[in-house]
Amino acid sequence: MTKSNTNKGTIFGIGLGPGDPELMSVKADRLIRTASHVAYFRKAGRKGHARSIVEGLLTPDVIEFAMEYPVTTEIQLSDPRYNYILSEFYQNCAAHVRDLSDQGQSLCVLCEGDPFFYGSFMHLYMRVKETQPVTVIPAITGMSAAWTQTGIPMTWGDDILTVLLGTLPKEELTRRMADTNALVIMKIGRNFEKISEALKATDLYEKAWLIQYAAMENSSVQKLSDVYENVTPYFSIIVVHGQGRRP
Amino acid sequence: MTKSNTNKGTIFGIGLGPGDPELMSVKADRLIRTASHVAYFRKAGRKGHARSIVEGLLTPDVIEFAMEYPVTTEIQLSDPRYNYILSEFYQNCAAHVRDLSDQGQSLCVLCEGDPFFYGSFMHLYMRVKETQPVTVIPAITGMSAAWTQTGIPMTWGDDILTVLLGTLPKEELTRRMADTNALVIMKIGRNFEKISEALKATDLYEKAWLIQYAAMENSSVQKLSDVYENVTPYFSIIVVHGQGRRP
Repeated sequence: MTKSNTNKGTIFGIGLGPGDPELMSVKADRLIRTASHVAYFRKAGRKGHARSIVEGLLTPDVIEFAMEYPVTTEIQLSDPRYNYILSEFYQNCAAHVRDLSDQGQSLCVLCEGDPFFYGSFMHLYMRVKETQPVTVIPAITGMSAAWTQTGIPMTWGDDILTVLLGTLPKEELTRRMADTNALVIMKIGRNFEKISEALKATDLYEKAWLIQYAAMENSSVQKLSDVYENVTPYFSIIVVHGQGRRP
Repeated sequence: MTKSNTNKGTIFGIGLGPGDPELMSVKADRLIRTASHVAYFRKAGRKGHARSIVEGLLTPDVIEFAMEYPVTTEIQLSDPRYNYILSEFYQNCAAHVRDLSDQGQSLCVLCEGDPFFYGSFMHLYMRVKETQPVTVIPAITGMSAAWTQTGIPMTWGDDILTVLLGTLPKEELTRRMADTNALVIMKIGRNFEKISEALKATDLYEKAWLIQYAAMENSSVQKLSDVYENVTPYFSIIVVHGQGRRP
């Protein structure tokens, strides 16, 4: 969607897709190759995954703005400081982006996956959308890349698809898993044991697949039951395929 | 995913995304522009939506294979002839595609949306994947285009997303709608009244959006409660946005 607003630069929230630069949209590719300003989130001290995806595409004189998360896992989600610190962080990022736009500069915010699907960009977006022109470019989700990589179609007929985050309580995960046709679980990482236990409490454990680094060079696809326990999978998604009607 | 197999041509299942040619992936765009053979499903007597998306991209001497559905809505899903006729249709399509591949010809099957997400291509895929080399290219889903077009982020924090098809019974729709954070409903068409009634039975009706022709020239976004009753929306998706935690 686009809001036009003369004189101000446009803030593009550009979905990069799952990781393979060739899986970016033609539109995203074009905008990134001609961008004068790019911004992206990353963990402090890292290059940043979004930035890595566009390596080699940016012009030599592009101006980069790395937005480094002030906290990741050191502070519990339940700690009131967590919200305060993150809110201040997004406010500062938004102020910088807004300044550029007010000066007439357009800017590409590089977003892993699809910007409006559990994306960090949404926090920035909500803080600039009322005053600046913003255009959001949808993208291929990590889950689409993951189920494609299994080589098994995901949803058939009127299969119901449920998307769950591994951060949910185990009881909630189990209840939802037991009541869907097709299943995607994201944010695996440290929640891997909990998710596995929840799947074992249903009949889905043997049907589940773990995809790591979908659409990236070091990707892997395994039946979940073949994965060693006590691992912490990165960039990983679990899927259970639907089995709906088909001719 | 890719299976390599010397001498045989590769069957590419190419996701075209929601409709805007610029939202195709760089990879899909490249493969389609250099294809010597393309195939696509369409209703008899129509140009076909997948074929329309790639208008102007194909080489002048490309060889086209239009796969025309023998039935759409004339025969009820519950009629045993439905499955028989469709199964024979997909078998015939698969035989043609397999012959081309056996002759060493690669072929691009043009798929609306993401091929493994409720796609017709899956029926072809299951009939050729054991014997021919197949590569599937994921794509931006219609639902991503739809929620992007509302200008409102879709899922936050650990929001649960449920995807429902309008073909489900009303009671099932209502039960699922009442028990999710974020909601996508597809296959609206003739099910529009039933879906609206199900939404009204929950507290989601006032929060729902109807997106028609997402990412196409004639697209529209409306609050569902602003839509006249007794319409039959085409190329339409209903979304209810999640309201999960955010700093």
